[in-house]
Amino acid sequence: MRTVRETCQAAKHASRGMATLPTAAKDAVLAATADALEARAADLLDANRRDVAAARRAGLTDTLIDRLTLTEGRIRGMAGGLRQVVQLDDPVGEVVAGWTLPNGLEIRRVRVPLGVVAIVYEARPNVTVDAAGLCLKSGNACVLRGSSSAQHSNAALTAIIREQLAEHGLSADAVCLVEDPSRDSVGELLTAQGLVDLLIPRGGPALVQRVIDDSRVPVVIDGAGNCHVYVDAAADLAQALDIAVNAKVSRPSVCNAAETLLVHEAVAGEFLPKVAAELRAAGVELVGDERAREIVDMGQATDDDFATEFLDLKLAVAVVTDLDAAIAHIGRFGTLHTEAVVTQDRAAARRFQREVDAAVVVVNASTRFTDGEQFGFGAEIGISTQKTHARGPMALRELTSVKYLVDGDGHIRR
Amino acid sequence: MRTVRETCQAAKHASRGMATLPTAAKDAVLAATADALEARAADLLDANRRDVAAARRAGLTDTLIDRLTLTEGRIRGMAGGLRQVVQLDDPVGEVVAGWTLPNGLEIRRVRVPLGVVAIVYEARPNVTVDAAGLCLKSGNACVLRGSSSAQHSNAALTAIIREQLAEHGLSADAVCLVEDPSRDSVGELLTAQGLVDLLIPRGGPALVQRVIDDSRVPVVIDGAGNCHVYVDAAADLAQALDIAVNAKVSRPSVCNAAETLLVHEAVAGEFLPKVAAELRAAGVELVGDERAREIVDMGQATDDDFATEFLDLKLAVAVVTDLDAAIAHIGRFGTLHTEAVVTQDRAAARRFQREVDAAVVVVNASTRFTDGEQFGFGAEIGISTQKTHARGPMALRELTSVKYLVDGDGHIRR
Repeated sequence: MRTVRETCQAAKHASRGMATLPTAAKDAVLAATADALEARAADLLDANRRDVAAARRAGLTDTLIDRLTLTEGRIRGMAGGLRQVVQLDDPVGEVVAGWTLPNGLEIRRVRVPLGVVAIVYEARPNVTVDAAGLCLKSGNACVLRGSSSAQHSNAALTAIIREQLAEHGLSADAVCLVEDPSRDSVGELLTAQGLVDLLIPRGGPALVQRVIDDSRVPVVIDGAGNCHVYVDAAADLAQALDIAVNAKVSRPSVCNAAETLLVHEAVAGEFLPKVAAELRAAGVELVGDERAREIVDMGQATDDDFATEFLDLKLAVAVVTDLDAAIAHIGRFGTLHTEAVVTQDRAAARRFQREVDAAVVVVNASTRFTDGEQFGFGAEIGISTQKTHARGPMALRELTSVKYLVDGDGHIRR
Repeated sequence: MRTVRETCQAAKHASRGMATLPTAAKDAVLAATADALEARAADLLDANRRDVAAARRAGLTDTLIDRLTLTEGRIRGMAGGLRQVVQLDDPVGEVVAGWTLPNGLEIRRVRVPLGVVAIVYEARPNVTVDAAGLCLKSGNACVLRGSSSAQHSNAALTAIIREQLAEHGLSADAVCLVEDPSRDSVGELLTAQGLVDLLIPRGGPALVQRVIDDSRVPVVIDGAGNCHVYVDAAADLAQALDIAVNAKVSRPSVCNAAETLLVHEAVAGEFLPKVAAELRAAGVELVGDERAREIVDMGQATDDDFATEFLDLKLAVAVVTDLDAAIAHIGRFGTLHTEAVVTQDRAAARRFQREVDAAVVVVNASTRFTDGEQFGFGAEIGISTQKTHARGPMALRELTSVKYLVDGDGHIRR
């Protein structure tokens, strides 16, 4: 069994070849892998059955087992995802900017791969294929560290990708699975300074905090989404109703779902009873501050509730005196993910977009649009809640760096 | 005395107001500060004298004392630097990209400040003014942690900047100096998660490694520059001579100076004696591998020499069999800073630029051009040797993030 360090070294070595590969060569591997996944579905389902059986014995919840389970349909979905990546523009080689200095030196800023991207993720085996596909297309090698509960599935999936790399004359180590999915292996990735160029954790708060605490390699944090919908005094209340319900109910388990509803006091008396009825009809539990509870009977919301990403059919509600109070509430409890205002007041919309600090600031639309596919990127490898390197939905571009090419004719610095 | 945490909290608070400030308001403070620095030169020189006297008592080297010393000319230089920053375009508010989705949602990616930028730097007091100026212009608050040896000078400089901020109706805490310049204060900055949005260390390898090891906030590493000049078989040897000498000798103490000369075996016999004579005439000590020493008498270069950023009049020399060997040598010993090839062979130049992994890859010019001012950025806050967030010379743009503004008419996600 290779150690994590050996795996990273192998990936680093492979990354040199990947970096200069023509787009057509990368696309050929991706397309062939898509076909191979479908052709070898039976093998994949066999491997997955071992993981699922072990998960049942270990008493994992039905939700986790559902996430872990592969089906023919999900395998087709993974293959389809790879075919979609084939269609995306290759970001590598783009001349982002270029200019000529007064002395005649020509400078170009050109997009290049990062090198080795490490992804630490939890039970879903489809992340294995999605992440490998995006890393390959962007010219990177990747080191994948899935959860132990999905290890057989992940090994079977990466084996198919690695076979296809080798069949196309490329280094199989462009896609590496960490062979030991123990807790320690994450620590080894986090300290693989000089070998891992970017690490992306895709998991819960404990993993994210561990990455922040222990990482010695560059990371992009795919953190919590404690998203707010603020219904302004000047909101179209029919729009506000649709947006609040959609943001909470359409998929409560994801990071771009709303967790708190803020309502301007001028419209709270009219709006809150309506939205509460619709939300409750959809099974949502409401907790509110004092002023919300004066209007609609609901449980008491604590500061903890306002700070919590429920990821469930639960919503915190507060009545605010004005736009400033709404912005201040978001400044205190938000997690820099997605914040929405519903208003027909142009000045309020502009102020909200300017003053709210978040990756995505939305006017008159649901928070649920924060997503690489929805944004038109064609894919997504995560949503950054930090401000450096990448912010918001991350796709191929966020898996690249730049380098400067300087061309002269014997220029020296005086 | 404020703790580091209190200082960071104050800066975070101030950063909210800075983020939405019009360009004219920022420029007014910068221009007034430039005038105030010149008007108060006597106070600054007084404060600086205390630092210099203490440094002499502590037995600091003449080089360090020279870096620490302020003069009327250097104060004018700092003021001039601020006036130059006034002339630069404000990066904040730039719409980097924008598009409309098929469903009619409009998306804009807009440049915004990072928030709080922390800079940890060594003796030069001018960094205090340069860093504060760039952070202010880009709408950030900054927390400056200079060295204890420059504390009186830094306090006098920041006092003037803070006075000007207050006189212009802004929060003085937009520019904060860490009041306790102890080693512990760096640790507190490194763990100020949620308060420091970006930390840039400007110092030697020990500081950089400490930042990599201990940081829980996003960092950009301004690391070592172990830069190479490779003289290809197809080089114009007169150009190569100029470039090699300029890259080594014009300012040996800086990160973009060359530290190793690689020469293709086909031209080593002709080129090495010439370049050795010129370099030695300029006071450069040469150490070489076996093949270089067969041509020119010099000390033996060890792998340690090839891995060392001398920052001095010393150069390691190796003879290589071909372009591949040169690229491999750079891959082994380079620090991802600046690498140069001298060649008239178009294919060799293209391969070198494509395959060498560095922030700046130069053809037929000196490595010394890697610099924000030389590149035309008008300023520089450091040179990134990492691949995420920023690469190469960093100026105003690298002190920003982006956010997505999404505009709809009641859009919900189906």
